[in-house]
Amino acid sequence: MSPPASDKLKMAAHAASSPSPISNPNPSTRARSNSHERRPAPSGKAASRVSQVADHLQPSQSLPSTLRFEMSSQEFKQAPHKLLVIPGPIEVADDVLLANAHPSMSHVSPDFVPVFGDCIRMMRQVLYAPNSQPFITSGSGTLGWDQVAANVVEPGDEVLVLNTGYFGDSFAECLEVYGAKVTQIKAPIGSKPTLDEVEAALKQKKYKAMTFTHVDTSVATLADAKGLGELVARVSPETVVVLDGVCSVASEEIRMEEWGIDVVLTASQKGLGCPPGLCIVAASKKAIAAFEARSVPPNSYFASWKKWLPVMRAYEAGTGAYFATPPTNLIYALHRSLTTITKGSVSLEERFKMHVEASNRVKSFVTELGLKQLVQDGFKDGAHGMTAVRYPEGLQASDLLPKLVAKNVVVAAGLHAVVKNEYFRIGHMGVTVVNDKERGDLDHLLKSIKEALLESGYKPPN
Amino acid sequence: MSPPASDKLKMAAHAASSPSPISNPNPSTRARSNSHERRPAPSGKAASRVSQVADHLQPSQSLPSTLRFEMSSQEFKQAPHKLLVIPGPIEVADDVLLANAHPSMSHVSPDFVPVFGDCIRMMRQVLYAPNSQPFITSGSGTLGWDQVAANVVEPGDEVLVLNTGYFGDSFAECLEVYGAKVTQIKAPIGSKPTLDEVEAALKQKKYKAMTFTHVDTSVATLADAKGLGELVARVSPETVVVLDGVCSVASEEIRMEEWGIDVVLTASQKGLGCPPGLCIVAASKKAIAAFEARSVPPNSYFASWKKWLPVMRAYEAGTGAYFATPPTNLIYALHRSLTTITKGSVSLEERFKMHVEASNRVKSFVTELGLKQLVQDGFKDGAHGMTAVRYPEGLQASDLLPKLVAKNVVVAAGLHAVVKNEYFRIGHMGVTVVNDKERGDLDHLLKSIKEALLESGYKPPN
Repeated sequence: MSPPASDKLKMAAHAASSPSPISNPNPSTRARSNSHERRPAPSGKAASRVSQVADHLQPSQSLPSTLRFEMSSQEFKQAPHKLLVIPGPIEVADDVLLANAHPSMSHVSPDFVPVFGDCIRMMRQVLYAPNSQPFITSGSGTLGWDQVAANVVEPGDEVLVLNTGYFGDSFAECLEVYGAKVTQIKAPIGSKPTLDEVEAALKQKKYKAMTFTHVDTSVATLADAKGLGELVARVSPETVVVLDGVCSVASEEIRMEEWGIDVVLTASQKGLGCPPGLCIVAASKKAIAAFEARSVPPNSYFASWKKWLPVMRAYEAGTGAYFATPPTNLIYALHRSLTTITKGSVSLEERFKMHVEASNRVKSFVTELGLKQLVQDGFKDGAHGMTAVRYPEGLQASDLLPKLVAKNVVVAAGLHAVVKNEYFRIGHMGVTVVNDKERGDLDHLLKSIKEALLESGYKPPN
Repeated sequence: MSPPASDKLKMAAHAASSPSPISNPNPSTRARSNSHERRPAPSGKAASRVSQVADHLQPSQSLPSTLRFEMSSQEFKQAPHKLLVIPGPIEVADDVLLANAHPSMSHVSPDFVPVFGDCIRMMRQVLYAPNSQPFITSGSGTLGWDQVAANVVEPGDEVLVLNTGYFGDSFAECLEVYGAKVTQIKAPIGSKPTLDEVEAALKQKKYKAMTFTHVDTSVATLADAKGLGELVARVSPETVVVLDGVCSVASEEIRMEEWGIDVVLTASQKGLGCPPGLCIVAASKKAIAAFEARSVPPNSYFASWKKWLPVMRAYEAGTGAYFATPPTNLIYALHRSLTTITKGSVSLEERFKMHVEASNRVKSFVTELGLKQLVQDGFKDGAHGMTAVRYPEGLQASDLLPKLVAKNVVVAAGLHAVVKNEYFRIGHMGVTVVNDKERGDLDHLLKSIKEALLESGYKPPN
């Protein structure tokens, strides 16, 4: 899509290139604060950047305050805090947090537009989906459900929801708000619908879409995304396959196109390693075609792809366009995190493998301690970015969790309504997994769990 | 509303008190990065905090990486950048950006919950609305329209839209997506509907709601919010009065309850001085009553007050609850900015006065240069947080705006479709106004405009 001339004009109002620790992540650049009493004056590259900027000013002018300071990611270290090992938000790297503190930028400036465009391109890489259309907006994972319900599905359409817990219930409710007719296959807690059950359902009725929760954060089940995609391709190829990847994107392998997944929806605060506040959706050509073939317009405004599609295409084309102001700082944070994920020293494949290994380590540790998971065979059917662990008999949340807090470890209580007092949840995603060697998060986590159990009077086997 | 026991339980899973530059903004705390090669070891309060945290650990344990570092707001200075004087996003203060880089926190932790609660309480102060219900969610101002359209208005309801430009068009479109029957009073560009016109319209038909754009960012008009509120109270008291305050909250006085305004919707990146990514709405008792009296449920999921109302009440009550993950870091940023706005050295009244003065200064300056505003009498009918200025005859965007960029000043091009190539927009809100003495933003801005005009060949009068 070619941008309208008016957008090009609007861009002329903005800066062509501002020095930024985000777009210039040169490790040799050690910029310094300009507090002259305590620090040497800028030198080297930092000085030359300030000087480039200063060149634009008249000699008699002093530098305005906005041009005076700079902080490199080498200097920025986040404040001390307890280790956050819940299934999202997760620990966020210093460089990502610094990007979230980027100076305020115009959402249509030539500095910001390519950063947004890069995020769109990198999301395709993370999902192995070179032909998909990502949508990146402010919001949360929940808004992804609205996007599916208001753009892919039309009022009266039949939708099959594979329900593995809390998030299946909610997605079904959201679809119904927008007028879908929902059929659910509900699995017992910690289990998931079998491919046979799903096949039988798909053969009974023509469904416009089928949704499943890749990792249900309430119970830590992992759906067979590949198997489900292949099944739909075989028995109901018109059905749009929707993967709720809020708790799986970037911590679980998702080969969107190869597996026949049509929509992946997620959020920024889990495997993607950013602060919360972004809703991220990717739509296959089939999903976009279903949207374009609607007989009625989308029945949401803020979640409307009719509004967002031209905006995403414009940002990717390098121009920028306006529907609603994008959350610029979170986009910088996402850019930083996606750059690490797609271009860092750990490949995407290696990242997924490390999550499997960390998951096995956590699951083995709690098993050896004599604890059970909510998922019956957690090694086979469980998520790799989180683990749901039952309290040992006689213990409950109030025995264990405050003791973990006292050890500076924050895990999450149960969430599934029926059993929420019987288990706790551990998140092991992102830097906690991939940078574990430097950080030691997993050691600290596991040691603390064991100590808290012993302090609670629990006697492990042997 | 009393929180369910399950939420209390969930909270037990989280930290009781973590040291944080946000919740402990003691100016004497000069924490230091732990790069031992270059810096002295932590001393004073910073050291004692680290030691408090370390007390929780066994003596043999080393501090985990998450507990090692801290950065005070005195040390954090944002990177050099061009002066951002568009009508939002605006310049953001260092302490607000540092809050946006807060360590990742659980959205239901006892540390975070009161921060969210404080934001809700402080928003009431900013709006002089002690009895209103604020809603703070991820999103943008646009999502506020969805909230009104899906919660206050029911399909088939009549709504009167006072249209002063781009944002009136869009609000009307949003209302129609959700099924409202919209009547518009469209004012000529740079003008606004008169109270007489509005009164006549209100007497012709019974409207469920009336909406107006307090400051239309496309043209810089300022609506008579007080007059409109009083008018509706007099001639159509059942009508819900909706003020679109995206470009007015915290830069224009809004006495929500005294003036009879029922809904104020806004976003974080303008007068509130934060990065973009938050949708903020406040609803009066009358608006909440209209919501509660609906005959059909809200026709949005993510924008549903049915979902958000219990969440907002729980956070304010100090417990926390879950519907969709709140954007924790942006909430910390908002908390920091709202603390300055409501408890800083400049009172709220003084803040509004300073915006009026800055506006007069900018408007006088361009007038003396012989330039005209889009608003005919900008001093009387124009916004105080922005100014829309016509290019002098013979000049256009491409003459002036790149010259401003070269002077490190970023203004915005035109937005109103009919005249967008005929004018540019200047934002003067937040720190650029309130901290102008230290920052010198306005001097730099005005001087740069004059220089750019002269360089373009423009000859001012005299």
